[in-house]
Amino acid sequence: MSRYSPSVSKLISELGKLPGIGPRSAQRLAFHILAMPQEEVKGLSDALVNARTSTRFCSVCQNFTDQDPCPICSDPRRDHSTICVVENPRDVSTMERMRDYTGLYHVLHGVFSPLNNVGMEEIKIKELIERLQKFPETKEVIIATNHTADGEATALYLARLIKPAGIKVTRIASGLPMGSNLEFADDVTLSKALQARREF
Amino acid sequence: MSRYSPSVSKLISELGKLPGIGPRSAQRLAFHILAMPQEEVKGLSDALVNARTSTRFCSVCQNFTDQDPCPICSDPRRDHSTICVVENPRDVSTMERMRDYTGLYHVLHGVFSPLNNVGMEEIKIKELIERLQKFPETKEVIIATNHTADGEATALYLARLIKPAGIKVTRIASGLPMGSNLEFADDVTLSKALQARREF
Repeated sequence: MSRYSPSVSKLISELGKLPGIGPRSAQRLAFHILAMPQEEVKGLSDALVNARTSTRFCSVCQNFTDQDPCPICSDPRRDHSTICVVENPRDVSTMERMRDYTGLYHVLHGVFSPLNNVGMEEIKIKELIERLQKFPETKEVIIATNHTADGEATALYLARLIKPAGIKVTRIASGLPMGSNLEFADDVTLSKALQARREF
Repeated sequence: MSRYSPSVSKLISELGKLPGIGPRSAQRLAFHILAMPQEEVKGLSDALVNARTSTRFCSVCQNFTDQDPCPICSDPRRDHSTICVVENPRDVSTMERMRDYTGLYHVLHGVFSPLNNVGMEEIKIKELIERLQKFPETKEVIIATNHTADGEATALYLARLIKPAGIKVTRIASGLPMGSNLEFADDVTLSKALQARREF
């Protein structure tokens, strides 16, 4: 005899497919959902489907959006000569939270990662190249992929691809985080910070 | 300008209402869901509603079930003279996993908790008392609420309520966990373990 009814087993297995939700969390969430008022469960269920169906990729920057082009790409007050390339939509929110950046974005939806079987054709690189051809006002591409092995490799690859078109390609700086102690910095970060030292 | 489209903001807020899911996890889950194939999102959404609508309380033990009485309460091979009282449906699964217990259950769906505004009438105590009157074959009630202040208070209250009916009321033992070191036991556990010492 299974420990749960079929509909509850199904719910636990569906929840367990989500990232960061293990079997125990899935079970805890499922029991919480069973105890929720029926209207609230309907609300959550509708929110899932509505968000998914009303969201598509912006044809310009490939970010998730419910209007095309997205509000950032269609905002005339933003600097359309600069494109910041990021790995995923969360990174756009992080950059926007800072409020210092007024250019546009390009979302790759991943990085080149041979170990995880993600090739160049699976991320939005082709779309970036086509975009640069379509919008010749682009003067600078800032590559803000993560400072991981895969992020660095993707950054290098993109730089080689874009530079020949005469567009300035930059990389966001790596170094010691603000407020951090030299003592606790890892060797790679420290070495990068030393290499990237600047004159006062 | 909000950082997300209305349907995505709504999804993030609905996910953030779930237990153990903070604003950051809600955002991460939402973006994962936006990137999922549409059929999978539909599957998750349907699983939520189906589990919730097909699940009700067992009229005997108050556990979640899709048939009434639940498979445990209607199993003639189980010992119907013993009822184990637990705080929530997860505890039933934990007990069942052990495979040592063959009696029935009663799920309180909480414990008496004045600090969290949970009164005696909000948990399934009335249903337990009515059940004991309806099923006079009950010989023993094992109280397996957690060994927390609220769990202990509820256990004590239940014992006082049930004992006068001439039913044996027991409490699962507290003590040192198997495989644990005396050195790392907290004082309360150690003191309880000492009090509950048994002769060889």
